[in-house]
Amino acid sequence: MRRTEATLAGRVQDYFESLQVTLCEQLARMDGAGSFRRDEWKREGGGGGISAVLADGALFEKAGVNTSTVWGEFDDAFLKRVGGTQRKFTASGISLVLHPLSPMVPTAHANLRYLTRGDDVWFGGGSDLTPSYPNEEDTRHFHRSWKAVCDRHDGSFYERFKRSCDEYFYIPHRGEMRGVGGIFFDDLRGDLESIFAFVRDCGDAFLSSYAPIVKRRRGEPFGERERAFQLYRRGRYVEFNLVYDRGTSFGLATHGRAESILMSLPPLARWEYCFQPQPGSREAAAAEFFQPRDWV
Amino acid sequence: MRRTEATLAGRVQDYFESLQVTLCEQLARMDGAGSFRRDEWKREGGGGGISAVLADGALFEKAGVNTSTVWGEFDDAFLKRVGGTQRKFTASGISLVLHPLSPMVPTAHANLRYLTRGDDVWFGGGSDLTPSYPNEEDTRHFHRSWKAVCDRHDGSFYERFKRSCDEYFYIPHRGEMRGVGGIFFDDLRGDLESIFAFVRDCGDAFLSSYAPIVKRRRGEPFGERERAFQLYRRGRYVEFNLVYDRGTSFGLATHGRAESILMSLPPLARWEYCFQPQPGSREAAAAEFFQPRDWV
Repeated sequence: MRRTEATLAGRVQDYFESLQVTLCEQLARMDGAGSFRRDEWKREGGGGGISAVLADGALFEKAGVNTSTVWGEFDDAFLKRVGGTQRKFTASGISLVLHPLSPMVPTAHANLRYLTRGDDVWFGGGSDLTPSYPNEEDTRHFHRSWKAVCDRHDGSFYERFKRSCDEYFYIPHRGEMRGVGGIFFDDLRGDLESIFAFVRDCGDAFLSSYAPIVKRRRGEPFGERERAFQLYRRGRYVEFNLVYDRGTSFGLATHGRAESILMSLPPLARWEYCFQPQPGSREAAAAEFFQPRDWV
Repeated sequence: MRRTEATLAGRVQDYFESLQVTLCEQLARMDGAGSFRRDEWKREGGGGGISAVLADGALFEKAGVNTSTVWGEFDDAFLKRVGGTQRKFTASGISLVLHPLSPMVPTAHANLRYLTRGDDVWFGGGSDLTPSYPNEEDTRHFHRSWKAVCDRHDGSFYERFKRSCDEYFYIPHRGEMRGVGGIFFDDLRGDLESIFAFVRDCGDAFLSSYAPIVKRRRGEPFGERERAFQLYRRGRYVEFNLVYDRGTSFGLATHGRAESILMSLPPLARWEYCFQPQPGSREAAAAEFFQPRDWV
Protein backbone atom coordinates (compact mmCIF):
# COMPACT_ATOMS: atom_id res chain seq x y z
CA MET A 1 0.00 0.00 0.00
CA ARG A 2 2.91 2.33 0.70
CA ARG A 3 4.04 4.27 -2.35
CA THR A 4 7.23 6.20 -2.92
CA GLU A 5 7.04 9.21 -0.67
CA ALA A 6 8.66 11.47 -3.25
CA THR A 7 5.59 11.31 -5.54
CA LEU A 8 2.67 13.63 -4.83
CA ALA A 9 0.42 10.60 -4.25
CA GLY A 10 2.88 9.25 -1.68
CA ARG A 11 3.27 12.57 0.09
CA VAL A 12 -0.49 13.05 0.21
CA GLN A 13 -1.04 9.60 1.70
CA ASP A 14 1.73 10.26 4.16
CA TYR A 15 0.19 13.56 5.22
CA PHE A 16 -3.28 12.02 5.67
CA GLU A 17 -1.90 9.20 7.82
CA SER A 18 0.17 11.50 10.02
CA LEU A 19 -2.81 13.85 10.38
CA GLN A 20 -4.86 10.85 11.48
CA VAL A 21 -2.37 10.09 14.26
CA THR A 22 -2.34 13.72 15.42
CA LEU A 23 -6.13 14.08 15.35
CA CYS A 24 -6.67 10.84 17.26
CA GLU A 25 -4.26 11.98 19.98
CA GLN A 26 -5.89 15.39 20.25
CA LEU A 27 -9.46 14.10 20.13
CA ALA A 28 -8.75 11.41 22.76
CA ARG A 29 -7.26 14.10 25.00
CA MET A 30 -10.30 16.31 24.39
CA ASP A 31 -12.59 13.38 25.24
CA GLY A 32 -10.72 12.63 28.44
CA ALA A 33 -12.02 9.07 28.89
CA GLY A 34 -12.25 7.11 25.62
CA SER A 35 -9.47 5.86 23.38
CA PHE A 36 -9.26 5.06 19.70
CA ARG A 37 -9.34 1.50 18.45
CA ARG A 38 -7.20 1.25 15.32
CA ASP A 39 -7.84 -1.27 12.50
CA GLU A 40 -5.81 -1.73 9.38
CA TRP A 41 -7.65 -3.31 6.48
CA LYS A 42 -6.88 -4.36 2.91
CA ARG A 43 -9.25 -3.90 0.00
CA GLU A 44 -9.73 -6.76 -2.44
CA GLY A 45 -8.92 -5.20 -5.80
CA GLY A 46 -6.30 -2.78 -4.48
CA GLY A 47 -5.31 -0.73 -1.48
CA GLY A 48 -6.71 -0.48 2.00
CA GLY A 49 -6.90 1.80 4.96
CA ILE A 50 -6.71 2.51 8.64
CA SER A 51 -9.86 3.07 10.66
CA ALA A 52 -9.68 4.61 14.12
CA VAL A 53 -12.86 4.72 16.17
CA LEU A 54 -13.50 5.88 19.73
CA ALA A 55 -16.82 4.69 21.17
CA ASP A 56 -18.67 5.61 24.36
CA GLY A 57 -16.27 8.31 25.48
CA ALA A 58 -17.03 11.09 27.96
CA LEU A 59 -17.46 13.68 25.21
CA PHE A 60 -17.87 11.57 22.07
CA GLU A 61 -20.54 8.91 21.80
CA LYS A 62 -18.68 7.98 18.61
CA ALA A 63 -15.65 9.55 16.97
CA GLY A 64 -14.08 8.14 13.84
CA VAL A 65 -10.98 9.17 11.92
CA ASN A 66 -10.39 7.04 8.83
CA THR A 67 -7.74 7.09 6.16
CA SER A 68 -7.74 4.98 3.03
CA THR A 69 -5.80 4.70 -0.19
CA VAL A 70 -7.50 2.49 -2.76
CA TRP A 71 -7.11 1.85 -6.46
CA GLY A 72 -8.66 -0.29 -9.13
CA GLU A 73 -11.08 -0.13 -12.04
CA PHE A 74 -14.74 0.94 -12.00
CA ASP A 75 -17.13 -1.92 -12.75
CA ASP A 76 -19.85 -1.51 -15.41
CA ALA A 77 -22.55 -0.42 -12.97
CA PHE A 78 -20.39 2.31 -11.44
CA LEU A 79 -19.07 3.46 -14.84
CA LYS A 80 -22.64 3.91 -16.04
CA ARG A 81 -23.37 6.05 -12.98
CA VAL A 82 -20.36 8.33 -13.26
CA GLY A 83 -20.15 8.48 -17.08
CA GLY A 84 -17.02 8.61 -19.22
CA THR A 85 -14.94 5.66 -20.36
CA GLN A 86 -11.84 5.73 -18.13
CA ARG A 87 -12.10 2.94 -15.55
CA LYS A 88 -8.78 3.27 -13.69
CA PHE A 89 -8.97 5.23 -10.47
CA THR A 90 -7.06 5.88 -7.28
CA ALA A 91 -8.51 7.56 -4.20
CA SER A 92 -6.67 8.61 -1.08
CA GLY A 93 -8.47 10.34 1.75
CA ILE A 94 -9.05 11.12 5.37
CA SER A 95 -12.52 11.36 6.90
CA LEU A 96 -13.45 12.49 10.36
CA VAL A 97 -16.89 12.27 11.95
CA LEU A 98 -17.54 13.29 15.55
CA HIS A 99 -20.85 12.43 17.23
CA PRO A 100 -20.84 13.96 20.73
CA LEU A 101 -23.01 12.44 23.44
CA SER A 102 -24.39 15.82 24.50
CA PRO A 103 -27.13 17.32 22.31
CA MET A 104 -25.62 20.71 23.12
CA VAL A 105 -22.34 19.92 21.32
CA PRO A 106 -22.57 19.89 17.50
CA THR A 107 -21.63 16.94 15.33
CA ALA A 108 -18.63 17.73 13.13
CA HIS A 109 -17.33 16.31 9.89
CA ALA A 110 -14.23 16.88 7.79
CA ASN A 111 -12.89 15.12 4.75
CA LEU A 112 -9.85 15.61 2.51
CA ARG A 113 -9.26 13.55 -0.60
CA TYR A 114 -6.90 13.11 -3.53
CA LEU A 115 -8.32 11.45 -6.62
CA THR A 116 -7.09 10.28 -9.98
CA ARG A 117 -8.99 8.84 -12.93
CA GLY A 118 -6.74 7.94 -15.82
CA ASP A 119 -4.44 10.98 -16.16
CA ASP A 120 -6.84 13.34 -14.42
CA VAL A 121 -5.80 14.37 -10.90
CA TRP A 122 -7.72 16.50 -8.41
CA PHE A 123 -8.27 17.28 -4.74
CA GLY A 124 -11.49 17.59 -2.80
CA GLY A 125 -12.46 18.17 0.79
CA GLY A 126 -14.18 20.34 3.32
CA SER A 127 -15.62 20.52 6.78
CA ASP A 128 -19.13 21.13 8.05
CA LEU A 129 -20.98 21.43 11.33
CA THR A 130 -24.29 19.82 12.34
CA PRO A 131 -25.71 21.14 15.61
CA SER A 132 -28.94 19.75 17.03
CA TYR A 133 -29.77 23.16 18.48
CA PRO A 134 -29.21 26.42 16.60
CA ASN A 135 -26.38 28.54 17.93
CA GLU A 136 -25.25 31.65 16.10
CA GLU A 137 -22.05 32.18 18.08
CA ASP A 138 -20.82 28.64 17.32
CA THR A 139 -21.79 28.83 13.68
CA ARG A 140 -20.05 32.16 13.18
CA HIS A 141 -16.90 30.87 14.84
CA PHE A 142 -16.89 27.78 12.63
CA HIS A 143 -17.40 29.73 9.39
CA ARG A 144 -14.90 32.44 10.33
CA SER A 145 -12.27 29.79 11.07
CA TRP A 146 -12.69 28.27 7.62
CA LYS A 147 -12.79 31.66 5.93
CA ALA A 148 -9.42 32.46 7.53
CA VAL A 149 -7.94 29.20 6.18
CA CYS A 150 -9.37 29.88 2.71
CA ASP A 151 -8.23 33.51 2.64
CA ARG A 152 -4.61 32.50 3.25
CA HIS A 153 -4.69 30.72 -0.13
CA ASP A 154 -7.20 32.42 -2.44
CA GLY A 155 -9.55 35.32 -1.80
CA SER A 156 -12.30 33.59 -3.78
CA PHE A 157 -12.14 30.22 -2.03
CA TYR A 158 -14.39 30.83 0.99
CA GLU A 159 -17.28 32.28 -0.96
CA ARG A 160 -17.13 29.51 -3.56
CA PHE A 161 -16.62 26.66 -1.14
CA LYS A 162 -19.20 27.92 1.35
CA ARG A 163 -21.77 28.00 -1.45
CA SER A 164 -20.74 24.51 -2.62
CA CYS A 165 -21.17 23.29 0.93
CA ASP A 166 -24.67 24.77 1.17
CA GLU A 167 -25.53 23.00 -2.08
CA TYR A 168 -23.86 19.70 -1.30
CA PHE A 169 -25.29 19.14 2.19
CA TYR A 170 -28.85 19.91 1.13
CA ILE A 171 -31.52 17.25 1.78
CA PRO A 172 -34.09 17.80 -0.99
CA HIS A 173 -36.81 15.65 0.56
CA ARG A 174 -36.57 17.65 3.81
CA GLY A 175 -36.07 21.06 2.22
CA GLU A 176 -33.20 21.81 4.58
CA MET A 177 -29.45 21.41 4.97
CA ARG A 178 -27.87 18.65 7.03
CA GLY A 179 -26.58 21.35 9.38
CA VAL A 180 -25.10 24.83 9.11
CA GLY A 181 -22.53 24.05 6.42
CA GLY A 182 -18.93 25.15 6.34
CA ILE A 183 -16.80 24.64 3.23
CA PHE A 184 -16.89 21.97 0.53
CA PHE A 185 -14.63 21.75 -2.51
CA ASP A 186 -14.29 19.20 -5.25
CA ASP A 187 -12.56 19.03 -8.61
CA LEU A 188 -9.73 21.32 -7.47
CA ARG A 189 -7.30 20.96 -10.38
CA GLY A 190 -4.33 22.89 -11.65
CA ASP A 191 -1.27 23.78 -9.57
CA LEU A 192 -1.37 20.61 -7.47
CA GLU A 193 1.40 21.72 -5.10
CA SER A 194 -0.48 24.89 -4.17
CA ILE A 195 -3.69 22.94 -3.78
CA PHE A 196 -1.93 20.38 -1.58
CA ALA A 197 -0.67 23.25 0.59
CA PHE A 198 -4.28 24.44 0.99
CA VAL A 199 -5.45 20.88 1.76
CA ARG A 200 -2.76 20.54 4.45
CA ASP A 201 -3.80 23.86 5.92
CA CYS A 202 -7.40 22.59 6.10
CA GLY A 203 -6.31 19.42 7.88
CA ASP A 204 -4.19 21.32 10.37
CA ALA A 205 -6.98 23.86 11.05
CA PHE A 206 -9.81 21.49 11.86
CA LEU A 207 -9.34 21.42 15.61
CA SER A 208 -9.23 25.19 15.98
CA SER A 209 -12.56 25.40 14.10
CA TYR A 210 -14.21 22.93 16.49
CA ALA A 211 -12.47 22.81 19.88
CA PRO A 212 -13.66 26.27 21.10
CA ILE A 213 -17.27 25.23 20.38
CA VAL A 214 -16.84 22.03 22.38
CA LYS A 215 -15.30 23.99 25.24
CA ARG A 216 -18.27 26.37 25.38
CA ARG A 217 -21.01 23.71 25.09
CA ARG A 218 -19.87 20.53 26.79
CA GLY A 219 -20.83 21.70 30.25
CA GLU A 220 -24.35 22.81 29.28
CA PRO A 221 -27.07 20.81 31.02
CA PHE A 222 -29.52 18.74 29.02
CA GLY A 223 -32.30 16.29 29.69
CA GLU A 224 -34.44 13.67 27.97
CA ARG A 225 -36.13 16.23 25.75
CA GLU A 226 -32.83 17.49 24.33
CA ARG A 227 -31.50 13.96 23.92
CA ALA A 228 -34.67 12.89 22.06
CA PHE A 229 -34.34 15.89 19.76
CA GLN A 230 -30.67 15.12 19.10
CA LEU A 231 -31.55 11.53 18.11
CA TYR A 232 -34.29 12.87 15.85
CA ARG A 233 -31.88 15.29 14.14
CA ARG A 234 -29.41 12.43 13.77
CA GLY A 235 -32.06 10.64 11.69
CA ARG A 236 -31.63 13.43 9.11
CA TYR A 237 -27.89 12.86 9.24
CA VAL A 238 -28.44 9.19 8.38
CA GLU A 239 -30.83 10.13 5.57
CA PHE A 240 -28.32 12.49 4.01
CA ASN A 241 -25.39 10.09 4.28
CA LEU A 242 -27.18 7.03 2.92
CA VAL A 243 -29.29 8.70 0.23
CA TYR A 244 -27.15 11.58 -1.06
CA ASP A 245 -23.56 11.49 0.12
CA ARG A 246 -21.25 10.83 -2.83
CA GLY A 247 -18.43 9.49 -0.67
CA THR A 248 -20.73 6.86 0.85
CA SER A 249 -22.11 5.89 -2.58
CA PHE A 250 -18.61 5.73 -4.03
CA GLY A 251 -17.37 3.60 -1.14
CA LEU A 252 -20.24 1.14 -1.23
CA ALA A 253 -20.30 0.92 -5.03
CA THR A 254 -16.55 0.28 -5.24
CA HIS A 255 -16.83 -2.45 -2.59
CA GLY A 256 -14.99 -0.56 0.11
CA ARG A 257 -14.96 -1.71 3.72
CA ALA A 258 -18.55 -1.21 4.90
CA GLU A 259 -17.65 -0.76 8.58
CA SER A 260 -15.26 2.07 7.69
CA ILE A 261 -17.59 3.78 5.21
CA LEU A 262 -20.53 3.62 7.61
CA MET A 263 -18.44 4.82 10.56
CA SER A 264 -20.07 8.18 9.74
CA LEU A 265 -23.48 6.97 10.93
CA PRO A 266 -24.50 8.04 14.43
CA PRO A 267 -24.42 5.47 17.24
CA LEU A 268 -28.16 5.95 17.82
CA ALA A 269 -30.80 7.68 15.70
CA ARG A 270 -34.53 8.14 15.89
CA TRP A 271 -37.40 8.66 13.48
CA GLU A 272 -40.74 10.09 14.54
CA TYR A 273 -43.60 10.33 12.08
CA CYS A 274 -44.65 13.95 11.49
CA PHE A 275 -42.73 15.33 14.46
CA GLN A 276 -43.98 18.84 15.24
CA PRO A 277 -41.91 20.88 17.70
CA GLN A 278 -43.77 23.24 20.03
CA PRO A 279 -44.19 26.62 18.33
CA GLY A 280 -41.59 29.07 19.61
CA SER A 281 -39.39 26.34 21.12
CA ARG A 282 -35.66 25.92 20.44
CA GLU A 283 -36.56 22.76 18.53
CA ALA A 284 -38.88 24.75 16.26
CA ALA A 285 -36.11 27.26 15.58
CA ALA A 286 -33.82 24.49 14.30
CA ALA A 287 -35.66 23.85 11.02
CA GLU A 288 -35.36 27.53 10.05
CA PHE A 289 -31.74 27.60 11.12
CA PHE A 290 -30.66 24.87 8.69
CA GLN A 291 -30.99 27.07 5.64
CA PRO A 292 -28.13 28.71 3.75
CA ARG A 293 -27.15 32.02 5.34
CA ASP A 294 -24.23 34.42 5.44
CA TRP A 295 -22.29 33.49 8.59
CA VAL A 296 -19.24 35.77 8.44
CA MET B 1 -57.91 11.81 -6.49
CA ARG B 2 -60.90 9.48 -6.75
CA ARG B 3 -61.27 7.81 -10.14
CA THR B 4 -64.22 6.02 -11.68
CA GLU B 5 -64.56 2.82 -9.74
CA ALA B 6 -65.46 0.84 -12.84
CA THR B 7 -61.95 1.17 -14.31
CA LEU B 8 -59.26 -1.25 -13.14
CA ALA B 9 -57.26 1.68 -11.74
CA GLY B 10 -60.30 2.81 -9.74
CA ARG B 11 -61.05 -0.67 -8.43
CA VAL B 12 -57.40 -1.18 -7.44
CA GLN B 13 -57.29 2.11 -5.53
CA ASP B 14 -60.57 1.25 -3.91
CA TYR B 15 -59.29 -2.15 -2.81
CA PHE B 16 -56.05 -0.70 -1.41
CA GLU B 17 -57.96 1.91 0.60
CA SER B 18 -60.46 -0.56 2.01
CA LEU B 19 -57.61 -2.96 2.86
CA GLN B 20 -55.93 -0.10 4.71
CA VAL B 21 -59.03 0.42 6.85
CA THR B 22 -59.30 -3.31 7.64
CA LEU B 23 -55.61 -3.69 8.44
CA CYS B 24 -55.58 -0.65 10.72
CA GLU B 25 -58.56 -2.03 12.65
CA GLN B 26 -57.00 -5.45 13.00
CA LEU B 27 -53.52 -4.19 13.87
CA ALA B 28 -54.88 -1.77 16.47
CA ARG B 29 -56.83 -4.65 18.05
CA MET B 30 -53.70 -6.82 17.97
CA ASP B 31 -51.74 -4.00 19.61
CA GLY B 32 -54.31 -3.54 22.33
CA ALA B 33 -53.21 -0.05 23.40
CA GLY B 34 -52.22 2.20 20.50
CA SER B 35 -54.39 3.70 17.78
CA PHE B 36 -53.71 4.84 14.23
CA ARG B 37 -53.37 8.50 13.38
CA ARG B 38 -54.70 9.06 9.86
CA ASP B 39 -53.41 11.82 7.54
CA GLU B 40 -54.64 12.59 4.06
CA TRP B 41 -52.19 14.44 1.86
CA LYS B 42 -52.08 15.83 -1.67
CA ARG B 43 -49.08 15.60 -3.95
CA GLU B 44 -48.03 18.65 -5.92
CA GLY B 45 -48.02 17.43 -9.51
CA GLY B 46 -50.84 14.93 -9.09
CA GLY B 47 -52.50 12.62 -6.64
CA GLY B 48 -51.98 12.03 -2.96
CA GLY B 49 -52.48 9.46 -0.26
CA ILE B 50 -53.54 8.44 3.19
CA SER B 51 -50.96 7.65 5.85
CA ALA B 52 -51.96 5.79 8.99
CA VAL B 53 -49.37 5.46 11.74
CA LEU B 54 -49.59 3.97 15.22
CA ALA B 55 -46.73 4.96 17.52
CA ASP B 56 -45.69 3.74 20.98
CA GLY B 57 -48.26 0.98 21.24
CA ALA B 58 -48.10 -2.04 23.54
CA LEU B 59 -46.99 -4.36 20.73
CA PHE B 60 -45.85 -1.96 18.01
CA GLU B 61 -43.22 0.68 18.64
CA LYS B 62 -44.27 1.92 15.20
CA ALA B 63 -46.80 0.54 12.73
CA GLY B 64 -47.57 2.24 9.45
CA VAL B 65 -50.11 1.45 6.77
CA ASN B 66 -49.97 3.86 3.84
CA THR B 67 -51.89 4.09 0.61
CA SER B 68 -51.17 6.48 -2.22
CA THR B 69 -52.26 7.10 -5.78
CA VAL B 70 -50.03 9.51 -7.64
CA TRP B 71 -49.50 10.51 -11.25
CA GLY B 72 -47.37 12.85 -13.23
CA GLU B 73 -44.32 12.95 -15.47
CA PHE B 74 -40.78 11.82 -14.67
CA ASP B 75 -38.31 14.70 -14.56
CA ASP B 76 -35.02 14.51 -16.49
CA ALA B 77 -32.98 13.16 -13.59
CA PHE B 78 -35.41 10.33 -12.90
CA LEU B 79 -35.85 9.52 -16.61
CA LYS B 80 -32.09 9.16 -16.93
CA ARG B 81 -32.09 6.72 -14.03
CA VAL B 82 -34.91 4.51 -15.24
CA GLY B 83 -34.21 4.72 -18.98
CA GLY B 84 -36.74 4.86 -21.81
CA THR B 85 -38.50 7.94 -23.14
CA GLN B 86 -42.04 7.68 -21.75
CA ARG B 87 -42.44 10.18 -18.92
CA LYS B 88 -46.10 9.74 -17.97
CA PHE B 89 -46.71 7.49 -14.99
CA THR B 90 -49.32 6.56 -12.43
CA ALA B 91 -48.64 4.59 -9.26
CA SER B 92 -51.17 3.27 -6.79
CA GLY B 93 -50.09 1.26 -3.78
CA ILE B 94 -50.39 0.15 -0.21
CA SER B 95 -47.40 -0.28 2.10
CA LEU B 96 -47.31 -1.74 5.55
CA VAL B 97 -44.36 -1.71 7.93
CA LEU B 98 -44.59 -3.07 11.48
CA HIS B 99 -41.78 -2.42 13.97
CA PRO B 100 -42.62 -4.26 17.20
CA LEU B 101 -41.19 -3.03 20.48
CA SER B 102 -40.07 -6.51 21.53
CA PRO B 103 -36.86 -7.83 19.92
CA MET B 104 -38.48 -11.27 20.03
CA VAL B 105 -41.25 -10.26 17.58
CA PRO B 106 -40.10 -9.88 13.96
CA THR B 107 -40.52 -6.73 11.91
CA ALA B 108 -42.88 -7.28 8.98
CA HIS B 109 -43.39 -5.55 5.68
CA ALA B 110 -45.89 -5.87 2.84
CA ASN B 111 -46.48 -3.83 -0.27
CA LEU B 112 -48.87 -4.06 -3.20
CA ARG B 113 -48.71 -1.71 -6.15
CA TYR B 114 -50.30 -0.97 -9.51
CA LEU B 115 -48.20 0.96 -12.01
CA THR B 116 -48.57 2.44 -15.44
CA ARG B 117 -46.05 4.13 -17.68
CA GLY B 118 -47.54 5.32 -20.94
CA ASP B 119 -49.64 2.36 -22.12
CA ASP B 120 -47.72 -0.18 -20.06
CA VAL B 121 -49.57 -1.53 -17.02
CA TRP B 122 -48.30 -3.89 -14.35
CA PHE B 123 -48.62 -5.02 -10.73
CA GLY B 124 -45.96 -5.56 -8.13
CA GLY B 125 -45.90 -6.51 -4.48
CA GLY B 126 -44.81 -8.91 -1.82
CA SER B 127 -44.25 -9.44 1.86
CA ASP B 128 -41.15 -10.20 3.87
CA LEU B 129 -40.13 -10.81 7.47
CA THR B 130 -37.19 -9.35 9.39
CA PRO B 131 -36.58 -10.99 12.77
CA SER B 132 -33.81 -9.77 15.04
CA TYR B 133 -33.32 -13.31 16.32
CA PRO B 134 -33.38 -16.38 14.07
CA ASN B 135 -36.41 -18.59 14.47
CA GLU B 136 -37.04 -21.50 12.15
CA GLU B 137 -40.61 -22.16 13.23
CA ASP B 138 -41.68 -18.57 12.53
CA THR B 139 -39.85 -18.42 9.24
CA ARG B 140 -41.38 -21.68 8.03
CA HIS B 141 -44.85 -20.49 8.99
CA PHE B 142 -44.36 -17.21 7.13
CA HIS B 143 -43.07 -18.86 3.96
CA ARG B 144 -45.69 -21.62 3.99
CA SER B 145 -48.44 -19.01 4.32
CA TRP B 146 -47.22 -17.19 1.25
CA LYS B 147 -46.67 -20.40 -0.69
CA ALA B 148 -50.33 -21.31 -0.04
CA VAL B 149 -51.47 -17.93 -1.39
CA CYS B 150 -49.24 -18.28 -4.46
CA ASP B 151 -50.30 -21.88 -5.15
CA ARG B 152 -53.96 -20.86 -5.34
CA HIS B 153 -53.07 -18.80 -8.42
CA ASP B 154 -50.07 -20.29 -10.19
CA GLY B 155 -47.92 -23.27 -9.28
CA SER B 156 -44.78 -21.42 -10.39
CA PHE B 157 -45.40 -18.21 -8.40
CA TYR B 158 -43.94 -19.12 -5.00
CA GLU B 159 -40.64 -20.43 -6.32
CA ARG B 160 -40.18 -17.43 -8.62
CA PHE B 161 -41.31 -14.80 -6.14
CA LYS B 162 -39.39 -16.33 -3.23
CA ARG B 163 -36.20 -16.18 -5.32
CA SER B 164 -36.95 -12.58 -6.37
CA CYS B 165 -37.42 -11.71 -2.71
CA ASP B 166 -34.06 -13.25 -1.77
CA GLU B 167 -32.46 -11.19 -4.54
CA TYR B 168 -34.32 -7.96 -3.88
CA PHE B 169 -33.77 -7.75 -0.13
CA TYR B 170 -30.05 -8.44 -0.36
CA ILE B 171 -27.66 -5.88 1.17
CA PRO B 172 -24.48 -6.21 -0.95
CA HIS B 173 -22.24 -4.24 1.42
CA ARG B 174 -23.25 -6.53 4.31
CA GLY B 175 -23.29 -9.79 2.33
CA GLU B 176 -26.65 -10.71 3.84
CA MET B 177 -30.39 -10.30 3.35
CA ARG B 178 -32.45 -7.72 5.23
CA GLY B 179 -34.22 -10.62 6.93
CA VAL B 180 -35.56 -14.04 5.98
CA GLY B 181 -37.42 -12.99 2.85
CA GLY B 182 -40.87 -14.03 1.77
CA ILE B 183 -42.20 -13.20 -1.68
CA PHE B 184 -41.50 -10.30 -4.01
CA PHE B 185 -42.95 -9.76 -7.46
CA ASP B 186 -42.64 -6.97 -9.96
CA ASP B 187 -43.52 -6.44 -13.60
CA LEU B 188 -46.51 -8.81 -13.42
CA ARG B 189 -48.16 -8.14 -16.78
CA GLY B 190 -50.74 -9.91 -18.93
CA ASP B 191 -54.19 -10.94 -17.72
CA LEU B 192 -54.63 -8.00 -15.36
CA GLU B 193 -57.89 -9.28 -13.85
CA SER B 194 -56.25 -12.55 -12.79
CA ILE B 195 -53.25 -10.69 -11.46
CA PHE B 196 -55.50 -8.32 -9.51
CA ALA B 197 -57.25 -11.38 -8.00
CA PHE B 198 -53.81 -12.62 -6.85
CA VAL B 199 -52.90 -9.19 -5.49
CA ARG B 200 -56.17 -9.07 -3.51
CA ASP B 201 -55.47 -12.53 -2.15
CA CYS B 202 -52.04 -11.32 -0.99
CA GLY B 203 -53.56 -8.31 0.76
CA ASP B 204 -56.21 -10.43 2.48
CA ALA B 205 -53.63 -13.04 3.58
CA PHE B 206 -51.11 -10.78 5.28
CA LEU B 207 -52.48 -11.07 8.79
CA SER B 208 -52.63 -14.87 8.77
CA SER B 209 -48.94 -14.93 7.74
CA TYR B 210 -47.94 -12.72 10.67
CA ALA B 211 -50.44 -12.90 13.54
CA PRO B 212 -49.54 -16.46 14.67
CA ILE B 213 -45.87 -15.41 14.95
CA VAL B 214 -46.81 -12.41 17.07
CA LYS B 215 -48.98 -14.60 19.29
CA ARG B 216 -46.10 -17.01 19.92
CA ARG B 217 -43.40 -14.37 20.54
CA ARG B 218 -44.96 -11.35 22.20
CA GLY B 219 -44.82 -12.85 25.67
CA GLU B 220 -41.17 -13.91 25.47
CA PRO B 221 -38.97 -12.13 28.00
CA PHE B 222 -36.13 -9.91 26.86
CA GLY B 223 -33.62 -7.56 28.41
CA GLU B 224 -31.16 -4.81 27.51
CA ARG B 225 -28.96 -7.17 25.53
CA GLU B 226 -31.81 -8.25 23.23
CA ARG B 227 -33.03 -4.68 22.84
CA ALA B 228 -29.52 -3.48 21.92
CA PHE B 229 -29.25 -6.25 19.33
CA GLN B 230 -32.66 -5.38 17.87
CA LEU B 231 -31.62 -1.73 17.48
CA TYR B 232 -28.40 -2.87 15.83
CA ARG B 233 -30.30 -5.10 13.37
CA ARG B 234 -32.64 -2.18 12.68
CA GLY B 235 -29.58 -0.25 11.48
CA ARG B 236 -29.35 -2.77 8.62
CA TYR B 237 -33.03 -2.18 7.90
CA VAL B 238 -32.32 1.55 7.54
CA GLU B 239 -29.31 0.86 5.32
CA PHE B 240 -31.36 -1.32 2.99
CA ASN B 241 -34.28 1.07 2.76
CA LEU B 242 -32.26 4.23 2.17
CA VAL B 243 -29.53 2.79 -0.07
CA TYR B 244 -31.26 0.06 -2.10
CA ASP B 245 -35.04 0.09 -1.82
CA ARG B 246 -36.55 1.05 -5.17
CA GLY B 247 -39.83 2.21 -3.64
CA THR B 248 -38.01 4.65 -1.38
CA SER B 249 -35.84 5.93 -4.26
CA PHE B 250 -38.89 6.27 -6.50
CA GLY B 251 -40.81 8.12 -3.80
CA LEU B 252 -38.02 10.56 -2.96
CA ALA B 253 -37.06 11.13 -6.61
CA THR B 254 -40.66 11.83 -7.66
CA HIS B 255 -41.06 14.30 -4.77
CA GLY B 256 -43.47 12.17 -2.77
CA ARG B 257 -44.39 13.01 0.81
CA ALA B 258 -41.19 12.34 2.77
CA GLU B 259 -42.95 11.56 6.06
CA SER B 260 -45.02 8.85 4.36
CA ILE B 261 -42.14 7.36 2.38
CA LEU B 262 -39.87 7.26 5.42
CA MET B 263 -42.61 5.82 7.64
CA SER B 264 -40.78 2.53 6.94
CA LEU B 265 -37.77 3.58 9.03
CA PRO B 266 -37.61 2.17 12.55
CA PRO B 267 -38.40 4.47 15.49
CA LEU B 268 -34.91 3.90 16.90
CA ALA B 269 -31.80 2.34 15.33
CA ARG B 270 -28.23 1.82 16.37
CA TRP B 271 -24.85 1.50 14.68
CA GLU B 272 -21.86 -0.06 16.37
CA TYR B 273 -18.49 -0.09 14.68
CA CYS B 274 -17.28 -3.65 14.01
CA PHE B 275 -19.84 -5.28 16.29
CA GLN B 276 -18.79 -8.86 17.02
CA PRO B 277 -21.36 -11.11 18.69
CA GLN B 278 -20.09 -13.70 21.18
CA PRO B 279 -19.24 -16.91 19.32
CA GLY B 280 -22.02 -19.45 19.72
CA SER B 281 -24.56 -16.84 20.88
CA ARG B 282 -28.02 -16.30 19.36
CA GLU B 283 -26.73 -13.00 18.05
CA ALA B 284 -23.92 -14.79 16.22
CA ALA B 285 -26.42 -17.19 14.67
CA ALA B 286 -28.36 -14.28 13.15
CA ALA B 287 -25.80 -13.39 10.48
CA GLU B 288 -25.81 -16.94 9.12
CA PHE B 289 -29.59 -17.06 9.27
CA PHE B 290 -30.07 -14.11 6.93
CA GLN B 291 -29.00 -16.01 3.85
CA PRO B 292 -31.29 -17.45 1.17
CA ARG B 293 -32.59 -20.88 2.16
CA ASP B 294 -35.42 -23.24 1.34
CA TRP B 295 -38.09 -22.58 4.01
CA VAL B 296 -40.98 -24.79 2.92
